[in-house]
Amino acid sequence: MIHSRKDMQYCEELFKGFYNIGATADGGVTRLGYTQTEDRMHETLIAAGRQMGFTEMADEVGNTYICNSTEDNYYLIGSHLDSVVEGGRYDGVAGVIAGMMVLRWAKEDGLNVPIRVGAFRCEESSNFGCCTIGSGLITKEVYKQDIEGLVAKDGRLLGDIFEERGLNIRPKKIEGVRQYLELHIEQGKVLNECHTKIGIVSTIAGPIRYNLYFHGMAEHSGTTPMMMRNDALCAAAEVVLDVERLGQRESMYQSVATVGVLYNRPNAMNVIPGEVQIGIDIRGIDRASLDRIEKGVLDSARTICRKRKVQLIEEKLSSIPPIEMTKELETKLEEVARRLHISNRIMVSGAGHDAMSFAAICDTAMLFIPCDKGNSHNKMEFAAIEDICNGARVIYEHIRRENQ
Amino acid sequence: MIHSRKDMQYCEELFKGFYNIGATADGGVTRLGYTQTEDRMHETLIAAGRQMGFTEMADEVGNTYICNSTEDNYYLIGSHLDSVVEGGRYDGVAGVIAGMMVLRWAKEDGLNVPIRVGAFRCEESSNFGCCTIGSGLITKEVYKQDIEGLVAKDGRLLGDIFEERGLNIRPKKIEGVRQYLELHIEQGKVLNECHTKIGIVSTIAGPIRYNLYFHGMAEHSGTTPMMMRNDALCAAAEVVLDVERLGQRESMYQSVATVGVLYNRPNAMNVIPGEVQIGIDIRGIDRASLDRIEKGVLDSARTICRKRKVQLIEEKLSSIPPIEMTKELETKLEEVARRLHISNRIMVSGAGHDAMSFAAICDTAMLFIPCDKGNSHNKMEFAAIEDICNGARVIYEHIRRENQ
Repeated sequence: MIHSRKDMQYCEELFKGFYNIGATADGGVTRLGYTQTEDRMHETLIAAGRQMGFTEMADEVGNTYICNSTEDNYYLIGSHLDSVVEGGRYDGVAGVIAGMMVLRWAKEDGLNVPIRVGAFRCEESSNFGCCTIGSGLITKEVYKQDIEGLVAKDGRLLGDIFEERGLNIRPKKIEGVRQYLELHIEQGKVLNECHTKIGIVSTIAGPIRYNLYFHGMAEHSGTTPMMMRNDALCAAAEVVLDVERLGQRESMYQSVATVGVLYNRPNAMNVIPGEVQIGIDIRGIDRASLDRIEKGVLDSARTICRKRKVQLIEEKLSSIPPIEMTKELETKLEEVARRLHISNRIMVSGAGHDAMSFAAICDTAMLFIPCDKGNSHNKMEFAAIEDICNGARVIYEHIRRENQ
Repeated sequence: MIHSRKDMQYCEELFKGFYNIGATADGGVTRLGYTQTEDRMHETLIAAGRQMGFTEMADEVGNTYICNSTEDNYYLIGSHLDSVVEGGRYDGVAGVIAGMMVLRWAKEDGLNVPIRVGAFRCEESSNFGCCTIGSGLITKEVYKQDIEGLVAKDGRLLGDIFEERGLNIRPKKIEGVRQYLELHIEQGKVLNECHTKIGIVSTIAGPIRYNLYFHGMAEHSGTTPMMMRNDALCAAAEVVLDVERLGQRESMYQSVATVGVLYNRPNAMNVIPGEVQIGIDIRGIDRASLDRIEKGVLDSARTICRKRKVQLIEEKLSSIPPIEMTKELETKLEEVARRLHISNRIMVSGAGHDAMSFAAICDTAMLFIPCDKGNSHNKMEFAAIEDICNGARVIYEHIRRENQ
């Protein structure tokens, strides 16, 4: 759809307000959760909210809300303002800006509906090795276990950081949310390659993650005959290819399987690798398919290591079930997008988002907008202002229709 | 054979003199070439030589010689005193100690033959990424190109280090050597597994080395469908397994092929690997077999990368031809070992040694002694004093027989 020049300009101004915060020499941004850089992002949001005549609130874990009302039963439009190390400027920020656009249109139109824009702390796992901390704590969904002991990149404990900031690691559960709505860049290239402007998320894939450790024998590469070897890297290489093969076989169920991490030791030209660690990430929305991949990977690794006389240690890191978005909202958003003549498709989110935290406590929906070439988590990340406005418009029109 | 208690004690004392130099908390030793730690090793050798009544000499590149005479046409028994990072105490040192035992026996027996024990600088490639620098420079065989520009682990240039030390990077060629004889631990487990006390080296395998760089696309592992990927690690894993397969196929020619090095980037759980580097080491004594492996590896890598749309960059690091030891000496040493009732076998050296430098300028032979479980280049490296005496005895008896 066509947006007014005023809307586009305003959206761009909001974006530019955040632009230089945490900028690195490399061209990207580093805005780790629960650091002063993230604080500056929140302060900038608060300033923008005040300028538009809205009030702000903070909760017990440091999340920020820009509100047009203090009434309950509000629409919560949210995302995050932190980033990965050397990340991009749109991941998270686009969703918060979209929320501000919705607040602005509601005010312009005199729409008397309580709306809050939420900026949730520390969505990325880059600082504490753990994602969606801000939204997870207040919904009590993600963190049922204690997380004070998580260690930040600078070596400090999350519990100590919370204490210094006067925050509460066991806050009361958020209340009064009517619906949670999140816009986010896709972080993939499906919308791009399909020339589609909006993705309506049906399910957020839950990652199953493993570390596998291969212990072979580190011996001289020149003096150890081929048949006397226990090469840990060769064992790991077989598993890497089996992970790919299993992911490909389950493609029809929209599952993916990846070895993203590999450490090789001692990593010397003249030494047969003695120890290798690989990190496996399996994602999808079909439980049976995920189970088949998980079982297949472990069976493969065990067989390969038995054959090669390499010791295998398995470490399961996480197993988050796929999380469904609210079907009724999905249908409503699709209908709105169609009426606005914005091309759209129902799709799966392979990445995790704050919406996972809210899905269990209220009706929840997610919209994706395209990002250039699927680039994300790096300086090349780019999304068009027009696409942010498109997504914001779909959210706004949805709220308006529900309250006519 | 049985050695006198006095010989065994003396040999052990020599070994203990070096024991603590460069010792690390981990239990190994770090004695990098052209550092003060290596200097202390040479000073300790000189002190031991003086105590035995011998004189020392140094050459233009800092190699040390312990001599029973200044006459030409001398037997040179040598090895090195530097180590890899966190290396063992026998690699190199065993050969220098064996030389000192030979000098001692010659003196005891009043054998009037000129003998020098050489300790060659910087045999390991650990400090400058380049091996046998001390022996290579004085034989003018290994380094036909200029090597001043090599960079040490501490960032300094080899040329500057030589200047500071008053050394000459273009020394005159060593003269007057009748034969070069080197004892070394096997650094493999063939002698161990075959219960053999002496290995007589027929050929030193020359390594052919490559770095291969795979450039794929680093994308989000959760949001990129399997069929849209260009996974650099999967491409590299296929090559790793092909290198192993080619090595196994050429086993009958005593060739080996190893991927010892693998760097994966960005090496994150949720990112498809975009860049991978592997280091390939191919060794053997049969040129045709080596050529088949080299060609096979490159063909395989090119085919795999074409199929996967991953960019391949090939970097050939070295191609040293196999180096033959002197056949006549091999036969003589075998005969001596048999007369001494020391079990022995003719074998290939998969590792490089200072003997490579001398093979082109004089008659050259190498003896291997067993090292426990084949462990080398780590703190578990162990060789028995008795085995060092065995090897030294074979060298000594050989010299005595030639000069009866």
